Amino acid sequence: MLTMQDALLALTRYWADRGCLLAQPFNTEVGAGTMNPATVLRVLGPEPWRVAYPEPSVRPDDARYGENPNRLQTHTQYQVILKPDPGDPQEQYLGSLEALGIDLAAHDIRFVEDNWASPALGAWGLGWEVWLDGLEITQFTYFQQSGGQALDPVSVEITYGIERIMMALQRVSHFKDITYAPGISYGEAFGQAEYEMSRYYLDDADVDTTRELFEAHAAEARRMIDAGLPVPAHYQVLKCSHDFNILDARGAVSTTERATAFGRMRALARDTARLWAQRRAELGHPLGVTQPPPQAPPPAAFAEVDGARTALLEIGTEELPAAEVTRAAQALGTALAAQLDATRLGHGRIETFATPRRIVALIDAVAPREPAAQTTVRGPRLGVAFDAHGAPTRAALGFARAQGVDDPAALGRVSADGVDYVAAVRTDPGRGAVEVLSEVFARVVAELRADVNMRWNDPALSYVRPVRWLLALLGDTTVPVAVSALASGRTTRVRRTAEVPVIEVGQADGYPELLAAHGVIIDPAARREQIVAGARALAAGAGGTVDAVGEAALIDEVTNLVEQPEPVLGGFEQRYLELPAEVLTTVMRKHQRYLPVRDAAGRLLPHFVAVANGPCDRDVVRAGNEAVLGARYEDAAFFWRADLQTPPEIMRQRLDQLAFERRLGSMADRATRIGGIARALAAPDRTTRPPLVALSDDDQRTLERAAPLAKFDLASQMVIELTSLAGIMAGEYAARSGEPVPVARALSDLELPRSAGGALPATLPGAILALADRLDLLAGLFAVGANPTGSSDPFGLRRAALGATAILRAWPALVPVTLSAGLAAAAAQLRGHCVDVPDATMAQAREFVVRRLEQQLLDAGADHRHVAAVLPLADAPAVADQTLAELAKLADRPDFADLAAALQRVRRIVPPGTPAGYDPERLAEPAEADLARALERVRAALGPGRPSLGEFADKAAPLAGPVNAFFDTILVMTDDPGLREARLGLLASIEDLAAPVLDWAALGPLRPR
Amino acid sequence: MLTMQDALLALTRYWADRGCLLAQPFNTEVGAGTMNPATVLRVLGPEPWRVAYPEPSVRPDDARYGENPNRLQTHTQYQVILKPDPGDPQEQYLGSLEALGIDLAAHDIRFVEDNWASPALGAWGLGWEVWLDGLEITQFTYFQQSGGQALDPVSVEITYGIERIMMALQRVSHFKDITYAPGISYGEAFGQAEYEMSRYYLDDADVDTTRELFEAHAAEARRMIDAGLPVPAHYQVLKCSHDFNILDARGAVSTTERATAFGRMRALARDTARLWAQRRAELGHPLGVTQPPPQAPPPAAFAEVDGARTALLEIGTEELPAAEVTRAAQALGTALAAQLDATRLGHGRIETFATPRRIVALIDAVAPREPAAQTTVRGPRLGVAFDAHGAPTRAALGFARAQGVDDPAALGRVSADGVDYVAAVRTDPGRGAVEVLSEVFARVVAELRADVNMRWNDPALSYVRPVRWLLALLGDTTVPVAVSALASGRTTRVRRTAEVPVIEVGQADGYPELLAAHGVIIDPAARREQIVAGARALAAGAGGTVDAVGEAALIDEVTNLVEQPEPVLGGFEQRYLELPAEVLTTVMRKHQRYLPVRDAAGRLLPHFVAVANGPCDRDVVRAGNEAVLGARYEDAAFFWRADLQTPPEIMRQRLDQLAFERRLGSMADRATRIGGIARALAAPDRTTRPPLVALSDDDQRTLERAAPLAKFDLASQMVIELTSLAGIMAGEYAARSGEPVPVARALSDLELPRSAGGALPATLPGAILALADRLDLLAGLFAVGANPTGSSDPFGLRRAALGATAILRAWPALVPVTLSAGLAAAAAQLRGHCVDVPDATMAQAREFVVRRLEQQLLDAGADHRHVAAVLPLADAPAVADQTLAELAKLADRPDFADLAAALQRVRRIVPPGTPAGYDPERLAEPAEADLARALERVRAALGPGRPSLGEFADKAAPLAGPVNAFFDTILVMTDDPGLREARLGLLASIEDLAAPVLDWAALGPLRPR
Repeated sequence: MLTMQDALLALTRYWADRGCLLAQPFNTEVGAGTMNPATVLRVLGPEPWRVAYPEPSVRPDDARYGENPNRLQTHTQYQVILKPDPGDPQEQYLGSLEALGIDLAAHDIRFVEDNWASPALGAWGLGWEVWLDGLEITQFTYFQQSGGQALDPVSVEITYGIERIMMALQRVSHFKDITYAPGISYGEAFGQAEYEMSRYYLDDADVDTTRELFEAHAAEARRMIDAGLPVPAHYQVLKCSHDFNILDARGAVSTTERATAFGRMRALARDTARLWAQRRAELGHPLGVTQPPPQAPPPAAFAEVDGARTALLEIGTEELPAAEVTRAAQALGTALAAQLDATRLGHGRIETFATPRRIVALIDAVAPREPAAQTTVRGPRLGVAFDAHGAPTRAALGFARAQGVDDPAALGRVSADGVDYVAAVRTDPGRGAVEVLSEVFARVVAELRADVNMRWNDPALSYVRPVRWLLALLGDTTVPVAVSALASGRTTRVRRTAEVPVIEVGQADGYPELLAAHGVIIDPAARREQIVAGARALAAGAGGTVDAVGEAALIDEVTNLVEQPEPVLGGFEQRYLELPAEVLTTVMRKHQRYLPVRDAAGRLLPHFVAVANGPCDRDVVRAGNEAVLGARYEDAAFFWRADLQTPPEIMRQRLDQLAFERRLGSMADRATRIGGIARALAAPDRTTRPPLVALSDDDQRTLERAAPLAKFDLASQMVIELTSLAGIMAGEYAARSGEPVPVARALSDLELPRSAGGALPATLPGAILALADRLDLLAGLFAVGANPTGSSDPFGLRRAALGATAILRAWPALVPVTLSAGLAAAAAQLRGHCVDVPDATMAQAREFVVRRLEQQLLDAGADHRHVAAVLPLADAPAVADQTLAELAKLADRPDFADLAAALQRVRRIVPPGTPAGYDPERLAEPAEADLARALERVRAALGPGRPSLGEFADKAAPLAGPVNAFFDTILVMTDDPGLREARLGLLASIEDLAAPVLDWAALGPLRPR
Repeated sequence: MLTMQDALLALTRYWADRGCLLAQPFNTEVGAGTMNPATVLRVLGPEPWRVAYPEPSVRPDDARYGENPNRLQTHTQYQVILKPDPGDPQEQYLGSLEALGIDLAAHDIRFVEDNWASPALGAWGLGWEVWLDGLEITQFTYFQQSGGQALDPVSVEITYGIERIMMALQRVSHFKDITYAPGISYGEAFGQAEYEMSRYYLDDADVDTTRELFEAHAAEARRMIDAGLPVPAHYQVLKCSHDFNILDARGAVSTTERATAFGRMRALARDTARLWAQRRAELGHPLGVTQPPPQAPPPAAFAEVDGARTALLEIGTEELPAAEVTRAAQALGTALAAQLDATRLGHGRIETFATPRRIVALIDAVAPREPAAQTTVRGPRLGVAFDAHGAPTRAALGFARAQGVDDPAALGRVSADGVDYVAAVRTDPGRGAVEVLSEVFARVVAELRADVNMRWNDPALSYVRPVRWLLALLGDTTVPVAVSALASGRTTRVRRTAEVPVIEVGQADGYPELLAAHGVIIDPAARREQIVAGARALAAGAGGTVDAVGEAALIDEVTNLVEQPEPVLGGFEQRYLELPAEVLTTVMRKHQRYLPVRDAAGRLLPHFVAVANGPCDRDVVRAGNEAVLGARYEDAAFFWRADLQTPPEIMRQRLDQLAFERRLGSMADRATRIGGIARALAAPDRTTRPPLVALSDDDQRTLERAAPLAKFDLASQMVIELTSLAGIMAGEYAARSGEPVPVARALSDLELPRSAGGALPATLPGAILALADRLDLLAGLFAVGANPTGSSDPFGLRRAALGATAILRAWPALVPVTLSAGLAAAAAQLRGHCVDVPDATMAQAREFVVRRLEQQLLDAGADHRHVAAVLPLADAPAVADQTLAELAKLADRPDFADLAAALQRVRRIVPPGTPAGYDPERLAEPAEADLARALERVRAALGPGRPSLGEFADKAAPLAGPVNAFFDTILVMTDDPGLREARLGLLASIEDLAAPVLDWAALGPLRPR
């Protein structure tokens, strides 16, 4: 049995053997190994650094009195920094797992996208969480920035979660049962400390004292920065951060305090980092300066081929994020097509594929060479080139020499703009295909980009993950490609644990089959099919099925997480089915990427399908995944049972212990306001005007019952642990406590939509509550001046704005709730809670929402002029929405174009403020009278109220002709003031009729077909 | 090359293989590995615990900006706890050195007494510092108490100083040059942090903030104790302690603040420890309960021997403190003699010997058995035993039966107080020698005791160091001895690194020779001779000699540090001879136990003699010792050069930066007062009465010049580092700065005596300054109420009191300076410094000094009645002293006894307050008149002034007869009041004459021979 201390020692030996300096855990509390100066400071600057150390990582918020099987206030990280990136850090890492006795061939080990950012450190990196049979055992990050500074060189950071690894290796289900040392369990050794420090962090630390400590350490940190001493400054920043974490665990930090404290710590960390880098430079970089790997030598020669061949480019990467796999294949196709278009090389179809570890292009029938091409170079004018005798002048002689033409008489002639020139014709014989592809391939690799890009040890490349190799062939000929430090070859890499992990590729044709033979399915569609078929077969074996349609997004993701899908059926204990299905599936999907298995009626079965990557010991992998899911479900079940002991009303009361924002009170205050807004919008109130939204009696009762319980589930243990279940748990707990189903649904709907484009409330009372939720957030934060600035949006106001407009757009019954009205209702609630709400801030909030809506409409592909035209209607987003849709349909209609043009003419001539109305008697000219009559007819046709754009377009179309005729024949600005007034009044009347429908001017000229 | 990280890893592996749990360094700053809860809490209670871990140990006070080659603000300890003591911890430790690649046979490895106590932790232990060729590399402690609790079982604590070990192994002379990891030096890795944290601790930490932190953590610690949570309490205690250390390094802690803070931390540590032990008990001791080793079985049988034999007892110990070696041999001899006296076993001479590792007794000619002995048991009275017919009564029959006498007629007769009884005579055949010795030896081992005793893994024994084996023989016969868990055998242990470290001893005779053949010289005299001869021979080789007389104490100590002395000559660089010889020899003696080598004129040569223990690679040992001494001298030379740049006046000014006591100001204030007191005692002052001490003009000039410089060297770097050189450096620096020699000597004398019995000031100005120093200390601390309580004497007032009396006793010129007068002068200075000095506190201070003097006189062996008799004179200790000496001589003289008895008779009859004087006319009786005349004669003979006791005894002796005659014939208390008054007045006159000389009553009856 490998004890935990054996494991730490094994890692220490392993990394020492790979040139790491062995550091010690830091001697003040840190939240993670990263915070140890051996990482967070050493990754700065150009000095090389390889280090390994264990780090007891203190997270007061994770304190659970030692009761939770997986969560501890102090867990042990093993931290490794490789600076610079050695080029094969993943392989070195896998070696360390073998050093721990992990059989890589038996287990399913995966690099699953997990990017990392620490606002408190001003740091971020890209990388993965490493899964061992579904269990996250390591964070693997290419550290890109720290203390606000871009890192050069980049460091590889490997952080092992030792307790988790030990639980898996020792097959125990509670951290206390880990054998720490021979004969001593983790619980025996550290159980008491775990309990007592939990008590301290959760219950007993003195809040006022801890606040004082925070302030004292922050002040010392600042003083040390000013004194030019980054090392003591860093100590103080860490102490400050630990104090903050204690306050947080004690529930003593409101959201604004959090933002303020983070800002302060970030600034200190940034200044400390800057200072450290500066000091190291002053010290002359005692450990030396990293040299980047050398540039690959440019190709010396290019082979020639004698006929059309298939070309192959394989860009070998480290595991790409699932979403990037698809995008990368598309982008490579587009880039290759464009680059090849810029050459004369003939080629057939370009096909691209991708897996997590490679982006592949196969190009059919690439011609052996570019065809020859002639270019004509214009010389001097003919009259200048030859003298009167026809003899070449010095100009002609010089041109001929420069163009390599021996006999000036052989120069050709060209004419341009009626002038004749001498000309030389040059023949470009065209380049061989290998040369062309070498250049094209180099360029597409150099220009690879994703949404978020990173650096690794390559001196010039930048992409979402490191590119580690290039394979380029034309037929069976190597295409030499040199990009930065990378040079292409003839080999590819298959599964890292394969017996032969690197194989030679003989020729481009048959490459997909060759890789398939080695277990790599390059075609995502094929992988997807294998997954669905495999998962269904396994599910069928368990008497169930997998909903490939409902889980399409998850299956797409899983397809891009593996090169060789190996679905594995696992199970969990029947008893967990007592939990709401959404809890179970949320955990499966979000945390584990498992496919749920359901019976014919759609009910969950106690099974799941995990998809491993390539061959493995299925029993081992199954057992591992089952243990992970079981532990997660055990947690959830614990919370579930505990929460069910607490009626919603009681939970609702506990919201007052959840801080929201200092000036806006607790979460209980916020929930009270949400209920208040909802009722103000919809409830009958005898003392004021009728409600904006008319509800049925049933809905009215539902809202009355639901409003006082709004957001109660935020105080449930389940939601505190799994925040994404907010709302879902409200519905579940409300229903189980005996609330009527509609009330439960309304409380559940309150949290919708969860994200842009997410599901919307399905019930009207729910929609009203959800809207009230967003209105309170927007109004409250704007009222206290906490509106988003730059990229900072700690309260998610952008999401709130989009949520509000999405609800308003989706629910016709809510059309009367304009943004202005809604925000006014929210402001009234705030004022009732003694919050000062300047009117101007509500106007700002409204403007903020409208801008978000505008952006959303543009992002959805709407014409920017159309969007501008409907924007004045956006106070009622549904109206803007409908108008935009109609506009899209109308825009191409000639009669609408005519109408719009006519109305724009009207608009242009009528000065702002011109009163509408006219004396028909004064309008004697026929065109005047016609227009007035046409206006009357249209007005009559439209009737009272604001017409929709479609209706207006139909009924006002007859105005276009008379308007144009009017302008063609009538001089509006006549000298007769009365007449001028009447004519302007007529036009103003037309404008007044049209203006509520659309901002016609913003529409600009419409070009009818 | 073994890198530092290799070394840490090697120790980790070694101790893991020996069952240690591998812990991590603690995640808050600790001053030593001991403070990690894995030590300081785990040593409490009965649970077994074996642990090993590295610990970066932070000592702000040791910060030197990375410049000092040996001193760092953070050094690396490797800490091992073995609980319980495994019985062979030294051997296990030596194995760990081998694991570090240290060749134990080549090096001189020694266990040198070093006991440890942490007032802040309420902890202490006994043990050693381990020397590697003179370099202290490890602290090895049997932990006896922690948090104020006695430890049971005792833990073995092994603390390696890793940087020192690495410097020795890598042969580098600056910690920055240690190769920490392959290709990375310690300086490269940690140099910047060392510099910056030094800046923080020494210069930049904010004192007010740090004080606040101290308070905050102390308060949290207290709260956590009250909440019953020892683990978070311990964290807070550590943070508190670190804050204190920072304050201390910033020079912001006065002596009283230190005492207060220590008291507070000690209380917190004690309560935390108590709480931890209690919590572990409540948790049912999760790691189990240690079982002590079983008792050795009592001897089953005893062999018989047939003639006189030599007996041998060897008590095998771990390395005894040098001072205990001599004491142990004497004590064993005394104990054996006493125990054997209580038996009837015949024996010859008892000889005892001792080395650091064994205490040996050889007993000549032990008889084979105790001789038979008869005992007579008295029975009933004869009259009761036999009836009138001479027949035995039931009483006689019963007695005979009980005594095993068959025939009552055979009962004997005894008489007592004239009464005849029947008696039975019983014969005790005596025990065999083996049996007797078995019992005697067991008893002496069980009763071994030293001044300070400790526990180890033995369930019952207690001694200054563990007893590990017993060897007991009578001739060639084993004497079975069972004491607690120890059983005797026939083997002994020689050098641990010998090829055969355990040898069998065939017989008692020849044992010393056998051991000598194995390199163990049991006779200290022989070892001493070897050392002196060897050292002299080596010194002679270097053209010098060793002063065996001057260094006698050191040689005695060294004799008891080795079993097989191997003197090794080493050298140091010539240039260090520029340093004062006292600096060099102080370092040699005190830190290294090296013998200085001098030339014929007594000048130091650049050599030394170290004495190794047993055979070793002399070149290796020499090089190691030279490196250690070189490093120490390099430090000293650095301070020396730096100090010489600073004139004494400037150093004197810097005393204001040294805190003394909050209410008593800085050290500069104290020095000013000392100068003031000295001048008040001795300088002519026209405005007041003449000085108490009359000085020659030269002395007067010297004092005037020296007083303003008093204690200036306390601000020198040398004295800050090597406090024992205070005074010595004052002399050196003063002389080199051009002060006259007498001034330099006076400043040097100021610090004398350094300890009780130490050298006294040799110059009168120096004596006055030294006295003033002690008077200021006593008066100041008593004035502010900081007088010693219980065993706490943080300012060393007891030592100051003894110093003051020693000076006063030694310098006749100072007799006029009574304690009262001196303290009054000190009080005047204090008042001049605005310190409130209640008169009562000076009386307390005087009383305190007198009590110390009394104790000292008693300790010196003076008769307690004599001491009591001179105590009233102690205000002038010299007078008390002289009187006591005279008294010792007089006490045996019959005439003095008569005089004393007579004076006591006078004293007894005269009521207190009786006025002296009488009217001679009233004294008509012959005895009255005789006495009055005798009194007048004595008075005339004595003349004015207080006579010495001797003079008084001589001249007042004639009073004895008349006094006795007076009392024999005269009734003092006659009815005639006038007569009574005259008689009492006569007696009172005698008393008044005698009282200033001695407290005659306290003397009690003297018995003349």
